[in-house]
Amino acid sequence: MTGVVRARRRRFTPEREAGVYGAVLDLLREVGYDALTMNAVAVQTRSSKATLYRRWGGKAELVAKAVRHYRPGPSLEDFDTGSLNGDLSALMLRTDDRAMEENAALMRGLATAVHANPDLREAFRDHVIEPEMAELHRILQRAIERGEVRADNPAIDLVMHVIIGGFVGRTFIDEQPPTRAFLLSYIDAVVLPALGVPTA
Amino acid sequence: MTGVVRARRRRFTPEREAGVYGAVLDLLREVGYDALTMNAVAVQTRSSKATLYRRWGGKAELVAKAVRHYRPGPSLEDFDTGSLNGDLSALMLRTDDRAMEENAALMRGLATAVHANPDLREAFRDHVIEPEMAELHRILQRAIERGEVRADNPAIDLVMHVIIGGFVGRTFIDEQPPTRAFLLSYIDAVVLPALGVPTA
Repeated sequence: MTGVVRARRRRFTPEREAGVYGAVLDLLREVGYDALTMNAVAVQTRSSKATLYRRWGGKAELVAKAVRHYRPGPSLEDFDTGSLNGDLSALMLRTDDRAMEENAALMRGLATAVHANPDLREAFRDHVIEPEMAELHRILQRAIERGEVRADNPAIDLVMHVIIGGFVGRTFIDEQPPTRAFLLSYIDAVVLPALGVPTA
Repeated sequence: MTGVVRARRRRFTPEREAGVYGAVLDLLREVGYDALTMNAVAVQTRSSKATLYRRWGGKAELVAKAVRHYRPGPSLEDFDTGSLNGDLSALMLRTDDRAMEENAALMRGLATAVHANPDLREAFRDHVIEPEMAELHRILQRAIERGEVRADNPAIDLVMHVIIGGFVGRTFIDEQPPTRAFLLSYIDAVVLPALGVPTA
């Protein structure tokens, strides 16, 4: 019997790992990094704290790994709607309103911690910021090739800043969740004009 | 002697209160709301925890009060540079780079907590968001009166979102502090074009 229990303990399937990472991301959204405890993760995933510590070492490592398993949404690599407006709209419509709010909550939950923790900052950069930046870069590159945006437009490198402002501002100023409808109107009202693209 | 000690304990001068609020704001910037402890405030201000609890009730009340004592910088009410570009630049140049970074750190430190705590959200809205919005509103109103910006431009209600994106994006994407130089270039590259104002 002891042998069986030990074997069970050792087993950590990819599915169970994914479940732990999902629970960690949920907790980050809900309470933020500092208030997240290994105990809460253990309760949420029906694991023992000892198991979590043995597998991941500690909270900082576990959170960084969980962030590395974050997926912002389906990739748009095969999308080309033929216009910048269409492509940016597709980027916003890719996730539903609930997922949009979840992404915003994750950003808030990590906001202070990424400054204090270099490992977490790296995980956040590689798995949250960079994939989004790469997608946006492809969209803007196509717009330049189409002649919609001038290659030397100084706003090109600042588009993601403006988009993030839509998410954060919607939450802090308007105290509303950043819905797809809001983000589409935001693209029309500020992102396209900043890039010198005429809107309807 | 006992009477003297009691009298001393009871005394909480406005200066000492301001010192406590300043320490709380510093701690919020450094560690964020969740990791902030009454113990740390007591150590920083050389007060006893009992004194802090007696005066403020608890952490949530103390932090909300501290946020109510936050001042973003000198008011611009008497400024009118004669152009939107000049006024927005004055708004950015009002605080030095260190204060700019401190404001950004305060935003990060409160990001998750304001969602969970209605009292704190109200304090944050009244004393951090609203004064900045009022200042910006005056600047935009002057620009409309001058004929620089059309009154029906849909970007008008989104300017603060875009500006916040400059702060947050600079920190998260570029991993740089939001300096005055960066924010001035950001106004030129995205804020003015979004409002339909030609730049140099």
